[in-house]
Amino acid sequence: MTEFFKNISKVQFEGTESTNPLAFRHYNPDEMILGKSMKEHLRFAACYWHNFCWPGSDVFGAGTFDRPWHQAGDAMEMAKMKADAAFEFFSKLNVPYYCFHDTDVAPEGDSIKAYANNFAAMVDVLEAKQAETGLKLLWGTANAFSNPRYMHGAGTNPNPEVFAYAATQIFNAMNATQRLGGENYVLWGGREGYETLLNTDLRQEREQLGRLMQLVVEHKHKIGFKGTILIEPKPQEPTKHQYDYDTATVYGFLKQYGLENEIKVNIEANHATLAGHSFHHEVATATSLGLFGSIDANRGDAQLGWDTDQFPNSVEENTLVMYEILKAGGFTTGGFNFDARVRRPSIDGEDLFHGHIGGMDTMALSLKRAAAMIQNDVLAGHVASRYAGWNTELGQKILQGNLSLASLADYALTQNIQPQPVSGKQEYLENLVNGFIYK
Amino acid sequence: MTEFFKNISKVQFEGTESTNPLAFRHYNPDEMILGKSMKEHLRFAACYWHNFCWPGSDVFGAGTFDRPWHQAGDAMEMAKMKADAAFEFFSKLNVPYYCFHDTDVAPEGDSIKAYANNFAAMVDVLEAKQAETGLKLLWGTANAFSNPRYMHGAGTNPNPEVFAYAATQIFNAMNATQRLGGENYVLWGGREGYETLLNTDLRQEREQLGRLMQLVVEHKHKIGFKGTILIEPKPQEPTKHQYDYDTATVYGFLKQYGLENEIKVNIEANHATLAGHSFHHEVATATSLGLFGSIDANRGDAQLGWDTDQFPNSVEENTLVMYEILKAGGFTTGGFNFDARVRRPSIDGEDLFHGHIGGMDTMALSLKRAAAMIQNDVLAGHVASRYAGWNTELGQKILQGNLSLASLADYALTQNIQPQPVSGKQEYLENLVNGFIYK
Amino acid sequence: MTEFFKNISKVQFEGTESTNPLAFRHYNPDEMILGKSMKEHLRFAACYWHNFCWPGSDVFGAGTFDRPWHQAGDAMEMAKMKADAAFEFFSKLNVPYYCFHDTDVAPEGDSIKAYANNFAAMVDVLEAKQAETGLKLLWGTANAFSNPRYMHGAGTNPNPEVFAYAATQIFNAMNATQRLGGENYVLWGGREGYETLLNTDLRQEREQLGRLMQLVVEHKHKIGFKGTILIEPKPQEPTKHQYDYDTATVYGFLKQYGLENEIKVNIEANHATLAGHSFHHEVATATSLGLFGSIDANRGDAQLGWDTDQFPNSVEENTLVMYEILKAGGFTTGGFNFDARVRRPSIDGEDLFHGHIGGMDTMALSLKRAAAMIQNDVLAGHVASRYAGWNTELGQKILQGNLSLASLADYALTQNIQPQPVSGKQEYLENLVNGFIYK
Amino acid sequence: MTEFFKNISKVQFEGTESTNPLAFRHYNPDEMILGKSMKEHLRFAACYWHNFCWPGSDVFGAGTFDRPWHQAGDAMEMAKMKADAAFEFFSKLNVPYYCFHDTDVAPEGDSIKAYANNFAAMVDVLEAKQAETGLKLLWGTANAFSNPRYMHGAGTNPNPEVFAYAATQIFNAMNATQRLGGENYVLWGGREGYETLLNTDLRQEREQLGRLMQLVVEHKHKIGFKGTILIEPKPQEPTKHQYDYDTATVYGFLKQYGLENEIKVNIEANHATLAGHSFHHEVATATSLGLFGSIDANRGDAQLGWDTDQFPNSVEENTLVMYEILKAGGFTTGGFNFDARVRRPSIDGEDLFHGHIGGMDTMALSLKRAAAMIQNDVLAGHVASRYAGWNTELGQKILQGNLSLASLADYALTQNIQPQPVSGKQEYLENLVNGFIYK
Repeated sequence: MTEFFKNISKVQFEGTESTNPLAFRHYNPDEMILGKSMKEHLRFAACYWHNFCWPGSDVFGAGTFDRPWHQAGDAMEMAKMKADAAFEFFSKLNVPYYCFHDTDVAPEGDSIKAYANNFAAMVDVLEAKQAETGLKLLWGTANAFSNPRYMHGAGTNPNPEVFAYAATQIFNAMNATQRLGGENYVLWGGREGYETLLNTDLRQEREQLGRLMQLVVEHKHKIGFKGTILIEPKPQEPTKHQYDYDTATVYGFLKQYGLENEIKVNIEANHATLAGHSFHHEVATATSLGLFGSIDANRGDAQLGWDTDQFPNSVEENTLVMYEILKAGGFTTGGFNFDARVRRPSIDGEDLFHGHIGGMDTMALSLKRAAAMIQNDVLAGHVASRYAGWNTELGQKILQGNLSLASLADYALTQNIQPQPVSGKQEYLENLVNGFIYK
Repeated sequence: MTEFFKNISKVQFEGTESTNPLAFRHYNPDEMILGKSMKEHLRFAACYWHNFCWPGSDVFGAGTFDRPWHQAGDAMEMAKMKADAAFEFFSKLNVPYYCFHDTDVAPEGDSIKAYANNFAAMVDVLEAKQAETGLKLLWGTANAFSNPRYMHGAGTNPNPEVFAYAATQIFNAMNATQRLGGENYVLWGGREGYETLLNTDLRQEREQLGRLMQLVVEHKHKIGFKGTILIEPKPQEPTKHQYDYDTATVYGFLKQYGLENEIKVNIEANHATLAGHSFHHEVATATSLGLFGSIDANRGDAQLGWDTDQFPNSVEENTLVMYEILKAGGFTTGGFNFDARVRRPSIDGEDLFHGHIGGMDTMALSLKRAAAMIQNDVLAGHVASRYAGWNTELGQKILQGNLSLASLADYALTQNIQPQPVSGKQEYLENLVNGFIYK
Repeated sequence: MTEFFKNISKVQFEGTESTNPLAFRHYNPDEMILGKSMKEHLRFAACYWHNFCWPGSDVFGAGTFDRPWHQAGDAMEMAKMKADAAFEFFSKLNVPYYCFHDTDVAPEGDSIKAYANNFAAMVDVLEAKQAETGLKLLWGTANAFSNPRYMHGAGTNPNPEVFAYAATQIFNAMNATQRLGGENYVLWGGREGYETLLNTDLRQEREQLGRLMQLVVEHKHKIGFKGTILIEPKPQEPTKHQYDYDTATVYGFLKQYGLENEIKVNIEANHATLAGHSFHHEVATATSLGLFGSIDANRGDAQLGWDTDQFPNSVEENTLVMYEILKAGGFTTGGFNFDARVRRPSIDGEDLFHGHIGGMDTMALSLKRAAAMIQNDVLAGHVASRYAGWNTELGQKILQGNLSLASLADYALTQNIQPQPVSGKQEYLENLVNGFIYK
Repeated sequence: MTEFFKNISKVQFEGTESTNPLAFRHYNPDEMILGKSMKEHLRFAACYWHNFCWPGSDVFGAGTFDRPWHQAGDAMEMAKMKADAAFEFFSKLNVPYYCFHDTDVAPEGDSIKAYANNFAAMVDVLEAKQAETGLKLLWGTANAFSNPRYMHGAGTNPNPEVFAYAATQIFNAMNATQRLGGENYVLWGGREGYETLLNTDLRQEREQLGRLMQLVVEHKHKIGFKGTILIEPKPQEPTKHQYDYDTATVYGFLKQYGLENEIKVNIEANHATLAGHSFHHEVATATSLGLFGSIDANRGDAQLGWDTDQFPNSVEENTLVMYEILKAGGFTTGGFNFDARVRRPSIDGEDLFHGHIGGMDTMALSLKRAAAMIQNDVLAGHVASRYAGWNTELGQKILQGNLSLASLADYALTQNIQPQPVSGKQEYLENLVNGFIYK
């Protein structure tokens, strides 16, 4: 079999002193952290799309990558070559998981029947590849946004035939995910939004999307899929406005359609920042609402207004994210999928490794730093004491609904209360956290 | 009695040919539009705070305004002088409504008892002023964000005593609003958010805020207040992140605490844009969710990242907002309150008139343009035909839950469906709208 | 010859009462405004690239447009078919000008020689088309950003061979522009910036770019090109940061390389807003620095952080831009080029007309509104009187350099000066402008 | 003498193992780095304004700080108490420098004469304080933006009397800076911009500001001030648009008025990010243009659109900034001034220490990391080899002006050049840098 990433062997942990750019400095899969191996904590996945489908194009320029599987040729042969390259890469990268869209792995063909046949054939290929390499599927998904038929949305399309087309892809992708042992199924509604309010019926589109989500959940139970259904919030791009803007918006949507116990969120760092939130905020919001599912690990560029999908490289940012995840009990079915891509001029095959190795080391070191914070959890202690007043009689009565507005006013005026201000200690706490990050 | 706005008489409609800067060119209160007078459609209110409390300061500079009621002196005397000036202004401006915070109209005093007494005394003054001038109260609210005691939040404060203090203010402000015939009661949670996640318990704070909202609703029913309770979403500023970020977020919050039929939203144009949405989007989202209540009419600056609270002056923007409101049946208890302020260098008393007159004319002309759109509703016709497919058998079966994912896939594959793309006609529709705006 | 835009005839002025969506409501080419025809004032151009090269793709999706000239086939034949379609469109649209990049009109081929030959052949075709239709070339340019060879920049590339390649394209494009009677030559440095500072030598790249600009100016004089050389500022996208960020930045660059009297700016509305400025600001800055050249007329989306290149549709925004341009004496060699594109779902050929007609009517009405402002120039009068103090002795002495810091301090202290604040009258002026926009 | 910061002694270096929140973990003043002590490298300054003048207010709330020198009382007595507190703080903080505005240290009084007298008296106090404590002045400046007289600008005011007033303050502040041994003089044009273009003459205001800058430089030479004159760029806030938007804009301005060799920039991290740039970008731009002067060390909040002036706490961000500064030879007269403030709820005196200690440790560790990068400068090596082609004959001929556009085209076509793409290695370089930051 052709070797696509020549001169690169399986990436190994070599420690912080290593100067080998193709080794891990921090990610040591079997190292135990808080009673679990790093591998189990982090559950890394690499993705099919950015690494094996994207040609290195952008809005202002053509593809820059010279990949054999992008050459002209028989579509199914190219798809198989792509699978060979992908599994060689995933294996050498030493990640336990991968993720894909249906149309990443199989050609769409020129009809829905051709799509279904091609995809079925490629699922066989993937199944064999998994068996051969030991790789597992973190999640599968259907691409219902790239084909021109979805230019007005998939579930939210004004044409119910398009809804049916998308439903068919989701049906196939869910079944494939189950067959391949996938641990989650993801819904990203790339076109589930509007380009202009002038031609849009918001209420109608919301109903359509709610029904689609319900269909997915019903199908999950029907086929006995044990994984988690995940929505991936994003505020905009490619549409002007997406209905799953951010975690708080998704929560309202799920409540409206009675799905808040059925669906969780797959949070992407760069989507968080495009929505005007920190990544930390989105993760903390999800854990506080019981919606936390999985992570698309990447980063945006603070000066750019689009999804740059760069590899995470900030231990400062990710230590707090990791701390939040550990506090919430860690991942169950979710994991860290690198929905990240090398920059367009990073044209060497090796660059795919540099990007992922940097990202994995960043998350691994963040895990170690966060674990240290947990082991000596002064932060949680500080927070607990800050809210201690809510455990007093007054606090408990308020929260339990034993006081009315009138009785509170009566209390306050009778006691002539004068609450004293207490410092929020933000700077102290920031220094405390930095003390964990920088030994 | 002292006249504060000398040489200015009651502002009158003079029509588009008028060159009098202190006359309305478009706002003609009694002109009938779609069967209602402009006055009834628009329900204009001017606010106390920006016009009579703010001294013209900003973060980098001291107050620039020379207002007699800001002079040193006995606090209650100054509050009365302020009320005189305010009602003179509201009357001359020819708005039917005004709005206030408790601490706008009365001095806070040095204790909660003093606060309650001062406020009670000033409510008497306001009642008399209303009777004398015929002005009505669109809404009242309590300021639970300016005093240092609220620096960590009011309902979300770590100290339940502060919660009790805020509850007392809300209790007083709701009672005053009812007594003064107010048609709504507004909650703006200026500090109901966090400065840093490091010292914050998101779940706890959300519970506190949920309980506060429930207390407000319970009190409303207890006292038989007939108006509407409104939450005013804002994403950030002064805090780093507010819990009532935008309309969609508020919807999720209301659903969580069972309040979605009890509370509506007061949408502020500038808060919408700070949250990354168009003003039109926020209004359309609220009407589609059944949450639309009232409007804080202003505008932001597209290049500035803070709340500039400028007077609305875009007929282009507000025609679409007005169209959305008319389509939703218009205001019930809500109205257009100008939560807007003159720029810091606009130091003349006359400038307060220019700002409001411009805003009122903008909204009045927008109403006329939107009414024309309704009378010849090609836009709605276009939208209806765009979604017509959902009235077919396939569309109805999907929405009514009669098809599973499997049966949809079976249908699609059996029929080998190939949905054909249809243009979204965005440019055509934009031209159509401009045809209404520019005669 | 094939007709590509069937059932569409030359777009005509029909006035504001027309309901024909394929007629102008405001653009009446021969109508005289301030002594010049609208056609001469506005100097409209349509562009080749968005209309005839872009397939309707975006970062998340494939092309949606079904255009005959995008089919597979002989590249030169397709280029000729594209030219046929383009000139049919330009003619029917009734614009006097068009604009192109070298690689829009001719295939790049597989070598630089092939490029030169193909382009030369297509320039012959364009020349014939111009003669046949009467269309004129507003400006030409070279695309030195789309091909992978330019992924690290053209003039700023680390490889001087790439610089030479770009120079060759510019050489050819300038010569073609001259031959085709082009009235300007534009330089847009789409990749003249950096992706990351980590691999970038800012000083070196600036020197390279400065030299390239000088080469262009030298060549202009050598060949006797009478048009204007224009730089088109843009802050970022596709690169993280472009060296020609905005007009003020370009000014500094031109001063550094002694080119401030040789090169002017081609301001794009959407680039202005991406740089954090209003479109009005960029035009006003350019006129105040003597750099104003031409306009790429479009608009961005205030909520989106990338170049949406939508058609201008705000008379409010463009009236002030038009006013600024008229005050500066109007265009000389420049004009309004629509660097704008229909939305991806606007797949009908007709949509290209809707977009441009809306844009042309917007600019035409803005011209009329601005002309009315000029004819009764209360705004300029207000500004002149605001700065009148600078015509007094003190003001003149300061500006003429006759006073030192010490003598100013001496004057101020001796006189114990106490300057009195004067209102900026912003709200009054905004109302005044709206009075011109809305009759 | 009263002790204001009780129970706090001079902050000492205790190393990374220290758990004392009032000790330095990384800043060890006498530790030698690349041949200079940390103290000499970093040249830390604390500021008067945020720490001793700001009462803890924001746009939505009153001051939260309880500081003795903010009490009512005789203004000069309060100013002296403030100076006592400030110098106690600076000394205990162990910074070698401080910075001030004229009106921070002395009351403005009710006339320009009173201002001059008060300021003169307080300069005597400061001089004595400096002698007593050994503290030095990094820079002085005049506040020509807070007083209402400056609401339309200082140098750019429409009234030349206001210009004269500002000139007087600058005259006094420059003289005081010289007398106090200040090493720089800073100009921040907080109101040197516009609120609205409608009332603004851009060309006129630019001329005024250019003249003011020339006056400052002339005065510097006249009095023999040996320090550096610095402009501090900021894009907006409080005005809508400032003329000294960013470093590249300032460069153009300086070139226009012949001042590019006389004035340098004082770059503020948070101003950089408000202008749409990374802090690193602004520093790198300044060094590449020969304009680098000094730093206002702070950070913004990536989600907030205003100047939050938080303490720097990112070693990741500042390592690259430090690397850039070291490569440029380090500071000459400049230094790191903490133009940073504690959050409004950080009301304890101790919080002022936490903020600064965190900031100092962040910069100190960044210095150490950057020094390691310099000692093994693989980054610079990579950059040098990337541009190596420009040292070849072709590269040199281009840069030296020996080739025309025509000769370049001739070369390219004759050679039929086909430059090959080379990876930009961004991910590799990012990993390399992280390898230095995280040992």
